[in-house]
Amino acid sequence: MKLFTKEEIEKVIRLDNRVVAVVEEAFNDLVQKKVQMPPIMRIDVPEHNGEIDIKSAYVAGYDSFAVKLSSGFFDNDKRGLPSASGMMLLLNSETGIPKAVLADNGYLTEVRTAAAGAVAARHLARENIKTVGVIGTGAQARLQVKALKLVRGFDKLLVYGRTPEKTAQYQKDMLQDLDIDVEIVSSPEEVVTESDVVITTTPSTEPLIQAEWFHPGLHITAMGSDAEHKQELESSVLERADYVVCDVKAQSLRLGEMRSCNDQRVIDEAIELGEITAGNKQGRINENQITVCDLTGTGVQDTAIARFAYDRLTE
Amino acid sequence: MKLFTKEEIEKVIRLDNRVVAVVEEAFNDLVQKKVQMPPIMRIDVPEHNGEIDIKSAYVAGYDSFAVKLSSGFFDNDKRGLPSASGMMLLLNSETGIPKAVLADNGYLTEVRTAAAGAVAARHLARENIKTVGVIGTGAQARLQVKALKLVRGFDKLLVYGRTPEKTAQYQKDMLQDLDIDVEIVSSPEEVVTESDVVITTTPSTEPLIQAEWFHPGLHITAMGSDAEHKQELESSVLERADYVVCDVKAQSLRLGEMRSCNDQRVIDEAIELGEITAGNKQGRINENQITVCDLTGTGVQDTAIARFAYDRLTE
Repeated sequence: MKLFTKEEIEKVIRLDNRVVAVVEEAFNDLVQKKVQMPPIMRIDVPEHNGEIDIKSAYVAGYDSFAVKLSSGFFDNDKRGLPSASGMMLLLNSETGIPKAVLADNGYLTEVRTAAAGAVAARHLARENIKTVGVIGTGAQARLQVKALKLVRGFDKLLVYGRTPEKTAQYQKDMLQDLDIDVEIVSSPEEVVTESDVVITTTPSTEPLIQAEWFHPGLHITAMGSDAEHKQELESSVLERADYVVCDVKAQSLRLGEMRSCNDQRVIDEAIELGEITAGNKQGRINENQITVCDLTGTGVQDTAIARFAYDRLTE
Repeated sequence: MKLFTKEEIEKVIRLDNRVVAVVEEAFNDLVQKKVQMPPIMRIDVPEHNGEIDIKSAYVAGYDSFAVKLSSGFFDNDKRGLPSASGMMLLLNSETGIPKAVLADNGYLTEVRTAAAGAVAARHLARENIKTVGVIGTGAQARLQVKALKLVRGFDKLLVYGRTPEKTAQYQKDMLQDLDIDVEIVSSPEEVVTESDVVITTTPSTEPLIQAEWFHPGLHITAMGSDAEHKQELESSVLERADYVVCDVKAQSLRLGEMRSCNDQRVIDEAIELGEITAGNKQGRINENQITVCDLTGTGVQDTAIARFAYDRLTE
């Protein structure tokens, strides 16, 4: 069994179009192949405000698959440590024998999560957009915007964050990294009313976005909620959107934005991203549609990026 | 993060009284401490007759805990490979950051599983026994008997196995390893009627042991069933035993021998091994009691042995 460090993995895996294609293929697999994807295993560590999630997916026909641990320990910043860490294990599908430990410290999860946002936007955002709005100022608030840049051109970024210092740092960093305007705004409402595409990236437990702020052509990707107590979108957002998409419906109903939806019609009509990427369902059909995509994070994405990383690391 | 190989781990961890004490302490923890032990996560790989189980347990107050992968790929013997493999990951309880990969290839699971059998026998088998019977001829059929030797003296071992060559090899190996008689018998019935302690170690999907063969003072440890389709004991065995014990009741009801029990009284009265080790309930109370213990394997055992191994490896 081989162990690869984060430094080694960062050298071969970047958030680029190849990774977006790999993650898009993973969503296809969910629809087109036999996939064994058990419910997420969660271990709570209440004494230290921590949680570990374990995800996995075996895709029939692939010679390996991943088991992924990701942790969030929310007292870590008091110690000067990042709250997220984790690793991926790659197992031989024919023998069950471990092939590799990808000690990526959460890096591959960050990349595959951002890539899923790009996949959603590719199929659901308008072709021509000018302004992107982001809520949150953490790692995904950065990576989701960079991933979107791979599939859509835009020249303005609005950001709303709760902590002024973090928001200012975000503005500074993004101005440096991307050749676009970056403006700080004072409310989620301002983000939504002035943006063509909105990305929510927070661990919020209270809804941040209201359907009242909708305007024609809006696309929202909500990637923050991945647990029973989290919620970024008011339930009316799903009810009043024209098109509701999620990564895995069962998971969105348990851990994502669909959990707070009381309208059975919305739940019944919501479709999975893989149905669009595989061509079974349409993406956006006109300039005026209001589209929402809820991403909770899936084991097939982990298996896809772990396999891709292993191939790059050993080629 | 450190990676330790099976060879390194085997040097510091052996099936001995220290390990039995560590596993007994883990059963105490289940009763005496706050434990977060989520249901087992299972990934099926039907194309290759394989399955991966993931177990974990966080015990409040301990500075680390384990996540354990164990795989059973039952076509592996056609390739000359063992069906079982796996590894343990040790995580820092305060930060969630991985401390170590114990690439033990299933070794620690074998040891902690056998140690649990010794813990059960220590509390449930008669003090003075002469004959031990084992059903099955695999790794656990060997280790369970060796673990029992740590807590009870006996001078005769009976074995029943389905495959004559494997049974003959078992006899040969055990004669070499232990200073006792080892006899091959021709049926599970013969094992039960002639033994004081019986250990079942098979992946059987059909019950092997019948209550009709009971005799006063018998103790049975059934450690084979750990999945919805497995069963070693006829349901009447639990109904007619005087005392039914299991490692974790919820798990035995889902994956172990209690799954096939239709008698609610038996389920209600069954107790967990930790209640006995912690002194809240009695073990065997007389020479004539017929006792049964069902072991499905628990995350606290994994956390206990992983922590113990890490301490030995880094001291």
